[in-house]
Order: sequence, then structure tokens, then C-alpha cells
Amino acid sequence: PTAVNLRWAIQRMARRLEVVEGDPFPELLEEALAIHREDIEANRRMGRLGAGLIEGNCRVLTHCNTGALATGGFGTALGVIRSAYAQGKVEHVYATETRPFLQGARLTAWELAREAIPATLLVDSAAALLMKEKGIAWLIVGADRIAANGDVANKIGTYPLALAARRHGVKCMVVAPLSTFDSGLPDGSGIPIEHRPPEEVLTCRGRATAPAGVAAWNPAFDITPAELVDAYVTEQGIARNPSEIRALLQKAPHL
Amino acid sequence: PTAVNLRWAIQRMARRLEVVEGDPFPELLEEALAIHREDIEANRRMGRLGAGLIEGNCRVLTHCNTGALATGGFGTALGVIRSAYAQGKVEHVYATETRPFLQGARLTAWELAREAIPATLLVDSAAALLMKEKGIAWLIVGADRIAANGDVANKIGTYPLALAARRHGVKCMVVAPLSTFDSGLPDGSGIPIEHRPPEEVLTCRGRATAPAGVAAWNPAFDITPAELVDAYVTEQGIARNPSEIRALLQKAPHL
Repeated sequence: PTAVNLRWAIQRMARRLEVVEGDPFPELLEEALAIHREDIEANRRMGRLGAGLIEGNCRVLTHCNTGALATGGFGTALGVIRSAYAQGKVEHVYATETRPFLQGARLTAWELAREAIPATLLVDSAAALLMKEKGIAWLIVGADRIAANGDVANKIGTYPLALAARRHGVKCMVVAPLSTFDSGLPDGSGIPIEHRPPEEVLTCRGRATAPAGVAAWNPAFDITPAELVDAYVTEQGIARNPSEIRALLQKAPHL
Repeated sequence: PTAVNLRWAIQRMARRLEVVEGDPFPELLEEALAIHREDIEANRRMGRLGAGLIEGNCRVLTHCNTGALATGGFGTALGVIRSAYAQGKVEHVYATETRPFLQGARLTAWELAREAIPATLLVDSAAALLMKEKGIAWLIVGADRIAANGDVANKIGTYPLALAARRHGVKCMVVAPLSTFDSGLPDGSGIPIEHRPPEEVLTCRGRATAPAGVAAWNPAFDITPAELVDAYVTEQGIARNPSEIRALLQKAPHL
């Protein structure tokens, strides 16, 4: 319920279905392949734009997985990191493990190793000390839904990272295609947060972490208020505030 | 290297050894048993004092383990929670799992279940959303070392919890005996932070969480600045600022 891109893609497929004549399947396949192709293109554009915001040869922090494994290909936040690394702008990538599902440890660390980008994993709660001690320039994350005012729903733990980032002068970049923006929602309070089974918290890689019978609370996302975000990177350009977000959305009236 | 209580206890034993006549073992055993007895008494006093700060029937959040398993008995932060629960002041306890070593999941959840105190576990990075949504009254934590100005070294993840607590009007209580205070250190920048093996981050309950060859950064503690702490609860009373900390330390000149 939290992510909005899937709804957007299904609506786009449904619109195509409405105008189809004859056998719908070839046309639906074509539409689906177009979505896939456009997603990768959008990712590459976001990669270039986001990398343009990064200066020098710096250290960056990312959360969860936003790479080729989480998108049509290339990635959103991880796409920016890839592009910036290729330009010699990223000295080192720090990645949170991202409990409970460990997307950072299992997926992001794997993608970074595969591309030979220097990277170090840390537990989620070590990120505040990291920002204090390691001179991190950017926190770079993706998004599952962005409200009209710029509030960002993203993987649980993004919000405390953004709080610590602001405290330590680390800039916060949110990388997401325009299909992630939900212009009908005035702010993040209207974004439903998916709660997942307690077992994900009570286990790790299939093994129990807590005694039997313990209860757990397992929200999969949190909301980062717009005031903590320094830049939204989309395939149509960069926004830094709600009016710039509105201007970008007007470039994509089909969304 | 981070915790200071062990050094304090060894110095106390060494002082006793210096004045012993004849066979030292009975006297050293007596001293050790006195330390143990005094620790439990101190915990019970801190429990009463800390519970006195809590009003109404509220929800509290704690981090790591600070209970009977981590102390001589009863506990520091968890001792306050126990005392407050017994007085009908705690409706529900939320406990972070505390990666990488899962002391919250393995130990705190076990202690709370054993005492039938209503409790819920969450991943560390869900705590900011919890504070936003669940009306938490107090963040209650222990400490491994407290500098003269009130900066607190405690389990990694305490600092981001304190940041989120301040943001959401959740008060922050640090519960520690006076032996945890290091009056010789002006502030937290002088507290050495123990770094532990990367394997703790790269595994969970003995199973790999990341691909082979991935690097990890594993600080075991972080520093919470004094400005984020609302109350220090010690066995000699409650302090709210550095001058009150100094006054308490003067009550215990042997430390």
C-alpha cells in the first residue's frame, strides 16, 4: 500500500487495454516492455543528474537497496552512486544493512562488490556515529511515495538517517522517478504505511532472534519530512522544494 | 575500553589488596561480594528514583539490555522500568532489538516476558516512527561511561534514539550508578569507542547476512550529547545538568 509506482504502472497498462483492438496481449507486452525500457532510461538520467550534485571525491551513505535489483535496471539512489563513482566523485560508499529484511547487506553490498565500488556495511543504528566521525557528504536514498509537499515514504529507518544527516551537515538526496510522486496527497500524513508480519523482526536469515512468544512491531516504511530533504532527483530534473516539484510534475502530465 | 565501571571495580579491589594482612583471598572475596550487594542496592534505589520521574500510565522505549542480566541484579534502565511498572506507571514497554548483538531481542525481551510486563520488540531503525506514532513518554537507557559534562557513551544506536526523542518530545532518561561517571573527562570526545569484529555485522545468530568479502564497520558504542538528556538517575539522586552531576559526585568521594 505504501509504494505508488505499481499503481501507476497498472493504471498505464489499463489505459492501454481500454484502447486496444483485437488480441490485447501483444500490445500489453509492448507497453510493459516500454515501461521497463523507460524505467532504465529514467534511472540513467537520474544517475547523471544526481551525480552532478556531488562535488569532489566524497563519502556517501545509502539505505536499503535501490539498485538494478530493485528497479528495471541501473537503480535510483544506487544509480546516482554508480554514476558519481564512475566520474571519480565517490571515494567510499557506506551501506546500512537495513533490518529486518537486510536488503542493504544482501543486495546493495552485493551490487557494490560486483562493480568493485569500495563499500562498507554497518548496522542501521551506527549511521549517526558514522555521520559524526567519517565526514559523509551525502545521504542518498530512494523513495516509495513522495507527497506533493515533498514528504518522502521510504524504507523504515530513512527518517532517523535524515534526522542525523541534518544534525551533522550531511546533505540528503532523494532519487525517484516522477511516477513515485503522488500529487494528490498534500503531505506525508496521507501515505499508508505497510505493516509486515512480526516474524520478520523476530527472525534473521530464518533463525529466531528473540524468545518464543515475544510480540513485534514491523512497519516497513517511515516518512521523512520534506524539510530534511535537500534535493529530489527525478528523470525530468532536480527539485529542491514543493514549487519545484510541481514544476517537474507539469512536465509529465501523463503521470 | 569504553565502559568505566570495570576499571572502577578493579581499582577498588586493588586498594583493598594494598591494606590486606595475611591471606588476601577471604578479604578480596568479601570486597567483591560487597560490590555485588551494593550494585543491587544501587539499582533498586535508581529504580525508585527513576520511577518517580514517570507520570501517568505511559509507554516507554528502551535500548539494549540493562536488566538483571547486565548488572549485579535488578538493572539500571530496566530497573526503572520494572519499578515504574510495579507502580502502575508503565502501560507498555517497547524494546529495540539492538543489532548487531541483539541484546534487546535476546535478553531484554526475555526479562520482560519473564516478569509478564507487556512488551513489543522493534528493529532499531523503526524507533523514530514509533516515537512519532505511539505517544512514547520516555526513552530510558543505561550508560557505559558518562563524562563530566553529561555526554553519555552507551550502546551503538542510543544517539539516534536520543535525536528522534528530542524531535518528538520524548524525554530521555539515563540510568547509571555513580561509578559510571568519569569526572576526569571534560566531555564525550575523550571517551574511547570500542570497535568490534566486522563478523558481528556480517552475521546474525551465526548465519551470514552479506556476501563473502564485504567489509563492515562495527563501533559498539556511540556518544549522546548531554543536551539531549533530560535526567541522569543515580543511586545518590537525580541530576539534570553538569552542576547537578558534580554535586552528586561529591556525595561519593570514594569514586
